[in-house]
Amino acid sequence: MVIREATAEDWPAVWLILQQEGSAGETLMWDPSRTESQVRAGWMREPPGRTVVAVDDGGAVIGSANTHSVHHGPGAHVANAGFVVDQARRGRGVGRALCRHVLEQARADGYRAMQFNAVVETNTRAIQLWGSFGFQILATVPEAFHHPVHGYVGLHIMHRTL
Amino acid sequence: MVIREATAEDWPAVWLILQQEGSAGETLMWDPSRTESQVRAGWMREPPGRTVVAVDDGGAVIGSANTHSVHHGPGAHVANAGFVVDQARRGRGVGRALCRHVLEQARADGYRAMQFNAVVETNTRAIQLWGSFGFQILATVPEAFHHPVHGYVGLHIMHRTL
Repeated sequence: MVIREATAEDWPAVWLILQQEGSAGETLMWDPSRTESQVRAGWMREPPGRTVVAVDDGGAVIGSANTHSVHHGPGAHVANAGFVVDQARRGRGVGRALCRHVLEQARADGYRAMQFNAVVETNTRAIQLWGSFGFQILATVPEAFHHPVHGYVGLHIMHRTL
Repeated sequence: MVIREATAEDWPAVWLILQQEGSAGETLMWDPSRTESQVRAGWMREPPGRTVVAVDDGGAVIGSANTHSVHHGPGAHVANAGFVVDQARRGRGVGRALCRHVLEQARADGYRAMQFNAVVETNTRAIQLWGSFGFQILATVPEAFHHPVHGYVGLHIMHRTL
């Protein structure tokens, strides 16, 4: 597996993975009424934002991540990141490799901290993974995510310094 | 003072107030390299977002606020809001009137809660005002705002149900 910068040619594969994960409804802020170009603009970040893909040994895109500032101007030194992994490739360290890469790149880019705004509290796999990288839960926004099985559940805001 | 929906004709006055508040550097996520059209797109929200102005008895715009969902899709039931008041009109209840209006409108629009993501912890005037409307500090993101006088200070995440 290799993590590298995403190119325009990667988008169709990323779009499939995002649709699969988004329509499952359990982890992403996914609005099915948004167009592909709207989703693409949000995922494939313009510089100084970054978007990477994880590619398997056969060259297939199996995950993606992006990074950008949480806020403009006086808040631009805190990075936000988003992650998605092909559901068929779960449990093989793709998310872990993406997170490691994103943290190292964000540190190199001069960000001082990383903040996740919307970690669904039932997404225990992600919470354990971010925790293993030193992220702490700063707060849980109550009933902020409408889960297809569990109803209204909280969103963790997670944070670590870089 | 009247609070009403913002129109295209209100933008020049709102833009002046935003520039004044933004360049002071103490409360807004203001990046001076952003163009007027970028700032306008962020402030003058398309439906289902809303933007209002506070207008004095002489018809002058003295403040503005906007509302939109914090997140798409499964998080769209939580509203975010932004506020700005003409620095020359502080202390006359403009922010309070805007907040009252925005809360009532958000409730009428069906939002279940309101969340502020970036209340600068040195902005005691705003924190007191939101507190008087029932907002609670869920968390403080450490050193997330670079203040021109105080250096790196925290950003409160404030929340209330509707």
